[in-house]
Amino acid sequence: MIEPHPSGGYILEELVVGMTAEKHVPITEERIAHFAEASDDFNPVHMDEAFASKTAYRGRIAHGLLTASFGSAVVGTILPGAGAIYLSQTLNFHKPVRIGDVVVARVTVASIDEVAARVVLRCEGFVNGEPIMDGDATVRVPRRRRVR
Amino acid sequence: MIEPHPSGGYILEELVVGMTAEKHVPITEERIAHFAEASDDFNPVHMDEAFASKTAYRGRIAHGLLTASFGSAVVGTILPGAGAIYLSQTLNFHKPVRIGDVVVARVTVASIDEVAARVVLRCEGFVNGEPIMDGDATVRVPRRRRVR
Repeated sequence: MIEPHPSGGYILEELVVGMTAEKHVPITEERIAHFAEASDDFNPVHMDEAFASKTAYRGRIAHGLLTASFGSAVVGTILPGAGAIYLSQTLNFHKPVRIGDVVVARVTVASIDEVAARVVLRCEGFVNGEPIMDGDATVRVPRRRRVR
Repeated sequence: MIEPHPSGGYILEELVVGMTAEKHVPITEERIAHFAEASDDFNPVHMDEAFASKTAYRGRIAHGLLTASFGSAVVGTILPGAGAIYLSQTLNFHKPVRIGDVVVARVTVASIDEVAARVVLRCEGFVNGEPIMDGDATVRVPRRRRVR
């Protein structure tokens, strides 16, 4: 685990492959309701236990992009943090996530392109140690400013 | 534009490459606040105009996964709709999205794997006709139930 830079974000020259950061986020009914309002996604598989219990999921599940957002939050606020510009993201969903689960979102610096100032961050989500999602975020990271 | 199936979602046999659905979602301060609560992502580039105005974005922008969530909402609630199981998603971010923008999220059936019951949906986001993001969602879609 690493601490965020006091400036609010790492610059390119401070990043090293293998650096990692994580946060733990509990899945609550309130969190799912906020995501539904934000995304305008009121799919009953997320909102209605009676409906969801009759689906393949056998109960309410969190929106996939909600669980993905925790890794994105680590990227945007911890590693590399503020200043990083999001270019792309891949996401693979492995298992449904339910109310009461605590998602561990872990982000690891996977590769650094010094020329393009682009960094690939491996994003992984776990519940009780089991992978529920993964994917790669590609961001552009600011370089050190030259002092004249 | 197509209407959702009365059952709440399309089955595999009803889908055809080229089918499309879209929705228009206004970006408001309230929507960004809901997404911040949901994702626990209070990055000041999304929350604080004074901070954001000094960054490369030159003002507050919506979270990338917030704008991505509108396409996911179309997939989960319109095309193919309830019953689709999210397997994976790719996302490319082209331009920042700001408060006051209206995002048009368009989803198109790009390919259908009848054997695996997997469907790839092209997801595109536009503001004032300009692309702000795109990506592909891969979902598993239920087949027609056999009546005995």
